[in-house]
Amino acid sequence: MDEFDFIDTIKQKSYNQPTLLKGIGDDGAVFQQTAKDIVTVVDTFVEGVHFTRKTIPPSLIGYRCLAANISDIAAMGAKLAFYLVSIVIPNSWTHEEMVEIFGGMKKLASKYHIDLIGGDTVSGSELTISITVIGYVQNGKSRYRSLAKPKDIVFVTGTLGDAQAGLYILMNPGNYKNKEYFIKRHQQPSPRVEFAQGLTRIDRLVFNDISDGIVSEAREISQASKVDIMLHENKLPVSKYFKQFPIHLQSEWKLYGGEDFELLGTVAREDWPKVQQVAERLKLQVTEIGEVLKPSQRGQVYLKENNQIKLVNKSGYIHFRK
Amino acid sequence: MDEFDFIDTIKQKSYNQPTLLKGIGDDGAVFQQTAKDIVTVVDTFVEGVHFTRKTIPPSLIGYRCLAANISDIAAMGAKLAFYLVSIVIPNSWTHEEMVEIFGGMKKLASKYHIDLIGGDTVSGSELTISITVIGYVQNGKSRYRSLAKPKDIVFVTGTLGDAQAGLYILMNPGNYKNKEYFIKRHQQPSPRVEFAQGLTRIDRLVFNDISDGIVSEAREISQASKVDIMLHENKLPVSKYFKQFPIHLQSEWKLYGGEDFELLGTVAREDWPKVQQVAERLKLQVTEIGEVLKPSQRGQVYLKENNQIKLVNKSGYIHFRK
Repeated sequence: MDEFDFIDTIKQKSYNQPTLLKGIGDDGAVFQQTAKDIVTVVDTFVEGVHFTRKTIPPSLIGYRCLAANISDIAAMGAKLAFYLVSIVIPNSWTHEEMVEIFGGMKKLASKYHIDLIGGDTVSGSELTISITVIGYVQNGKSRYRSLAKPKDIVFVTGTLGDAQAGLYILMNPGNYKNKEYFIKRHQQPSPRVEFAQGLTRIDRLVFNDISDGIVSEAREISQASKVDIMLHENKLPVSKYFKQFPIHLQSEWKLYGGEDFELLGTVAREDWPKVQQVAERLKLQVTEIGEVLKPSQRGQVYLKENNQIKLVNKSGYIHFRK
Repeated sequence: MDEFDFIDTIKQKSYNQPTLLKGIGDDGAVFQQTAKDIVTVVDTFVEGVHFTRKTIPPSLIGYRCLAANISDIAAMGAKLAFYLVSIVIPNSWTHEEMVEIFGGMKKLASKYHIDLIGGDTVSGSELTISITVIGYVQNGKSRYRSLAKPKDIVFVTGTLGDAQAGLYILMNPGNYKNKEYFIKRHQQPSPRVEFAQGLTRIDRLVFNDISDGIVSEAREISQASKVDIMLHENKLPVSKYFKQFPIHLQSEWKLYGGEDFELLGTVAREDWPKVQQVAERLKLQVTEIGEVLKPSQRGQVYLKENNQIKLVNKSGYIHFRK
């Protein structure tokens, strides 16, 4: 496959973003943004590590990779603008499959009017996709992890553990209730862009997107904000047929599973009704799952489970609280 | 190696760029730039394809990867601001080697006060480094490929083919004159940042950095600008001991070799003295190697060699002109 011909295939015929001055076709892309802050995120996906041909078709590989990046932009409270894609292509992948991968990205990109403005295609032995996404956020309205305050409500969108359940179904074929739902949650996660964008009038709000599991994300917030956080195990939202899976897997998936790409957030109690209103308008479940405790240099996360309070550390290992 | 610990190791303790609002440590980095246009470039390097352990030590892998990206930013006429690094790390590479790779980048980044503001580290079977670099350029002063005009002088910085000669020496050990020079040109190319920045007062200027060989780069300019370009084989600058290599390799390297990361440019004849002055001040060789001919929808590149004029196509194959 000729690199130049391939780039011609995937290049957009026209661009959506009025701030773009130069898209694909030079040493770099050029844009201007005089009014807003600019957010950049990057994520890399490797065949055999993040996905396999068995668990996801080519078009959804593209979709899913871009979705993970979009989720990061949403978690910063930013609007989407551009993306750049670097891809390492092994001989074992056909030109048609490559077009499908980029087609999957394009489908999701079109939904949010994001423009593909650059990238690189090289050969290699392992399909690897690295995406950089650029977004815009109102000055000073980035939803940093460091902004949580004592007495904030801790909340989460959607349900937890579904993506891992979907992967489990793909790896362990059989009869499951709501099979398609779980598989879709793994292959085609829905970044919570509209929800995050609907809350721009709230001054202070913290978001972290759930890529590594809720405990890990809560710890990132607690450490950046230097506060302790309490999560209530019995409040963690799960989907209708989640209970069909082995009990130890349920617990693992919802606490440490990750890749749900839901948003974990904290907000002042007086702003909580606004969060609920926006979620209701979008028909999106939003659940209060804990609270921010006192200021703390170490920034610990505690999990309340059956009237026991456990200290949770980053690898997911749980110590009983002394 | 724990990803979080590793990120702590490579994270900058402080940042240079005053436009940066948030560096590493959230879902994304945030900056603002109200006065200038913003340029983004991305390049990916794969072990076994772009480099091997045999031909380059870890610290210079980092240096070289970033240098190639910096060269793209220079070719856009932009100043450097930020970089983001995605890296796929196989088990066969040690933590120390990873630190060396990032150390090599940091060394080069420090020279230009560029800040590392994000990235991703994942495991995989093949060392792959994908770098996104962000730069700033004065409004409307991007050095696009599409701006070449008939009668422009075509020029190039430095000498051609040296990087390929260096790689050849590494692959074919033996006695060579100026061995260290050629190897350095392969392992540690010098992006022409100061030169490009020194020419900001020239209104219209075209740059393409030489990553794929001068013929390929000239074709990108001729096609984007819709003009024909004539290159003079006997004017192509080579370094002092370049003639020690087999004659067919000399020709291949200087025309199609690439990876010299010199700048190919076009400029109006009346501005040529300014280009020469800046080069002289920087003690950088700059050579007139051809001229822009007439407007042309097909944008062809011709090579004058021993009083014969040949049409050159993108794969480097040469047809005789009819």
